[in-house]
Amino acid sequence: MPMDYKTTGKQNTVDAASFRFTTRSVECDILLDAYVRYREAIFGRNADRFHAMRQSPKFVQMFSQEGDIGEVSVDVSKPCQGSYPSLESDESYSLSVANGQVMISAQEVWGALWGLETFVQLVYKSDTGEYMVNDTIISDKPRFAHRGLLLDTSRHFLSTRNLLRNLDAMAQNKLNVFHWHIVDDQSFPYESMAFPELSNKGSYFPESQVYTPTDVAEVIEFARLRGIRVVAEFDSPGHTQSWGLGQKGFLTECYSGVKPDGSYGPADPTLNTTFPFLKQFFAEVASVFPDQYIHLGGDEVSFTCWQSNPVIKDFMQKMSYGTNYAKLEEYYMQNLLDIINSLKRGYIIWQEVIDNGAKVRPDTVVEVWKGGWEEEMEKVTKQGYKTLLASCWYLNYISYGSDWTTYYTCDPQKFNGTDAQKALVMGGELAMWGEYVDDTNVLSRLWPRASAVAERLWSPQDVNYPLVAEPRLIEQRCRMIRRGIPAEPVTGPGTCPVEYREP
Amino acid sequence: MPMDYKTTGKQNTVDAASFRFTTRSVECDILLDAYVRYREAIFGRNADRFHAMRQSPKFVQMFSQEGDIGEVSVDVSKPCQGSYPSLESDESYSLSVANGQVMISAQEVWGALWGLETFVQLVYKSDTGEYMVNDTIISDKPRFAHRGLLLDTSRHFLSTRNLLRNLDAMAQNKLNVFHWHIVDDQSFPYESMAFPELSNKGSYFPESQVYTPTDVAEVIEFARLRGIRVVAEFDSPGHTQSWGLGQKGFLTECYSGVKPDGSYGPADPTLNTTFPFLKQFFAEVASVFPDQYIHLGGDEVSFTCWQSNPVIKDFMQKMSYGTNYAKLEEYYMQNLLDIINSLKRGYIIWQEVIDNGAKVRPDTVVEVWKGGWEEEMEKVTKQGYKTLLASCWYLNYISYGSDWTTYYTCDPQKFNGTDAQKALVMGGELAMWGEYVDDTNVLSRLWPRASAVAERLWSPQDVNYPLVAEPRLIEQRCRMIRRGIPAEPVTGPGTCPVEYREP
Repeated sequence: MPMDYKTTGKQNTVDAASFRFTTRSVECDILLDAYVRYREAIFGRNADRFHAMRQSPKFVQMFSQEGDIGEVSVDVSKPCQGSYPSLESDESYSLSVANGQVMISAQEVWGALWGLETFVQLVYKSDTGEYMVNDTIISDKPRFAHRGLLLDTSRHFLSTRNLLRNLDAMAQNKLNVFHWHIVDDQSFPYESMAFPELSNKGSYFPESQVYTPTDVAEVIEFARLRGIRVVAEFDSPGHTQSWGLGQKGFLTECYSGVKPDGSYGPADPTLNTTFPFLKQFFAEVASVFPDQYIHLGGDEVSFTCWQSNPVIKDFMQKMSYGTNYAKLEEYYMQNLLDIINSLKRGYIIWQEVIDNGAKVRPDTVVEVWKGGWEEEMEKVTKQGYKTLLASCWYLNYISYGSDWTTYYTCDPQKFNGTDAQKALVMGGELAMWGEYVDDTNVLSRLWPRASAVAERLWSPQDVNYPLVAEPRLIEQRCRMIRRGIPAEPVTGPGTCPVEYREP
Repeated sequence: MPMDYKTTGKQNTVDAASFRFTTRSVECDILLDAYVRYREAIFGRNADRFHAMRQSPKFVQMFSQEGDIGEVSVDVSKPCQGSYPSLESDESYSLSVANGQVMISAQEVWGALWGLETFVQLVYKSDTGEYMVNDTIISDKPRFAHRGLLLDTSRHFLSTRNLLRNLDAMAQNKLNVFHWHIVDDQSFPYESMAFPELSNKGSYFPESQVYTPTDVAEVIEFARLRGIRVVAEFDSPGHTQSWGLGQKGFLTECYSGVKPDGSYGPADPTLNTTFPFLKQFFAEVASVFPDQYIHLGGDEVSFTCWQSNPVIKDFMQKMSYGTNYAKLEEYYMQNLLDIINSLKRGYIIWQEVIDNGAKVRPDTVVEVWKGGWEEEMEKVTKQGYKTLLASCWYLNYISYGSDWTTYYTCDPQKFNGTDAQKALVMGGELAMWGEYVDDTNVLSRLWPRASAVAERLWSPQDVNYPLVAEPRLIEQRCRMIRRGIPAEPVTGPGTCPVEYREP
């Protein structure tokens, strides 16, 4: 639901044969790509056939009148050729359908993209099969700048093809950050150029279940053209078991009594190889992923293995940490943060890093994922950090029925704090952790449940009645199905005019 | 897991180039179709290319030795051309892989089909890409004769294409009854030849969301060739809202005070048009669906509307039913059962029909679906009726994590009763009601959770340890994915060598 939205009963036909997007803006690859995409989104793959059909007498009889609207005029103030979206993107736009004219205006191309998406959603088919759009005036911008979706490609592998399909679905819902939790304990599918053994040894199948540099570049470019940032997460020092397979000496050796028991714990901060490795590795990450932010993880570090290791224990003594292993974790994170600093990148971290007291840059974004998020958001923003909410949007947790309403009614600014604190909420992220999803079910499990979160993060705070949202959600599901996304039914019995068919 | 299963480490290569199924049996369309299918299940769609490859010197070098096994010999005692499976089918088979020979023997073709399925599951690929099978002796038959899967095509429509894919998945898990809950309150997608208005008015979209006679015939034939019965359910007198749209006067008019309020209740048993309509309708059903059994529903009949209707009240008085509307329900069911009797078909009914005391034929099968099923099964079998359990296998109810173990550990004979009572348990059915599934997610939500039920209904009672079953389930999931079914991950993180890709 846009911020400001006025529509009337005045219907206009859209002239499929002559239809085109035009722009007076300078050259812009993003717009040109969007025009092709959105033309197909309206008319399907048969758009070009309309020209041929026009020649036939039957067609002339059916559509004796030319459509009212043959052009959507897009106006973007700033140049956009080759640019990437960022946390500072201006995503506002205005859209007007009036007097047979359609105008989309935006400061930046990112707003224009959302304006195009909105326009396409306004077009409907009449009973006689004509494309229609009603007179409408919209002035719109998102409530939050960071509207993210996390996919975990480690617990199960996800094909690049499905990552791209999901980016398409995100664009249909105006989500703008793909948080790519790319590696974890279970597998390391990221193919590093500097350290190829990480995926050779750490992926499930290095031949077929890795993301090559080409795959990664394809994901980033596909996202950019849709106004979506790709924030890669390389979580450490915990959640790194798979790293250890291809990078010997990176993980802590766990001891049983006086000798190693063959198992490994978190990264070992005491070895002089650890941070040079991380420096080289993250230098590559920074060169591959253009986004200003890198997600560094930092969650759920178990101290058991560190506590068992005599070298670590010596180091703890040397550093006067006593038995406070949170200090060791802070030491690790501090060194890592300094590396990222030196790469001129900002970072997003899971809440534990702050909870454990690490010193972070003032522009750090802290992602809150645990229960009791209201207190945590209050605490994090009191310290002046930007924050993201994920806690109430773990869509991997499923239950029977219409669970989208609980996602819909969770408001990330609903905690005790000053206006200044509330302003530090950049938005939030829905998470689809990978324990029980893979290419068989990830898209249908995400959509349209994720659409509920998307509206929460885009629309004004007072757009929050599930009963009012439900018809929109039903309509959006059918729209997504028509555009190739297997969005599952979440509101009970019903149907879509066009049912899903695997592509 | 087969009843008797002995295997050794003795490996045999399967000769892809010369491989064939042979039979000394008489002509049998079911076997011929199965041979094509199972050849592809082993070798994929490229099976025929092996012949060409054999010509090349490189191939000869790679496989200098011929495979050990080039033939699977199938022996079926009874003729099977054109036959249909039934509740009385003999599904037993024996399978032997020994001395480079593979033999499958069965009394009836149905057992031979399961033997072929088992053989295909025994074949694996070596690291060098050769097809292998170990020496094995199996003597196998199902614990229960009725191993069903219910799909509801009313709450949401399911494409014929996905019904067929699901039948393929059922065959891969040796389930043998497709319980087609084809119509309900929400829609009537069955296209009746005698009463076309039922689907013209009662389906979601009569152009695209109906099952034409051709579709239904295709489903039945596809199922027959896989040893699967198709039991159609036309549920009444409740769950019939959609019938009312195309069959005026069939449903009870609900009254508010002294006049109809425009809404409708269950079928109206008092009108003299009701049973003639049902007789003609079910005569068509009996001619379309060859199975000996028709499912008549009979569940969840609400009395509120009946109680409001003055004509019904008069009828109650005339029949001396007092205010016992269960008597009216019994009256309806009794008339319907007599109709089915006259069509020489048996019937399956939901438990309420028996609970309400209707007189049914001795060969009636009573399906138990409510909570407290142990007491109900005890009661139903004490009255001498055959019974099916569904209560613990409502797979539409989802929850986070590995819920398959609860399905796996539910045993349909675990109730208080004599051996004679236990022997009346024909088996069970898993149900996927359609409130929250459609073509976007029905297959991934069913599989491999339904495989857990399939093993419960096939394997001996003492094969019941989830921890032992889990590796088999993981293997079966990957096998199903390779054969085109999007079976979702249900055991936590992991992978399959070949991941799912939409066809």
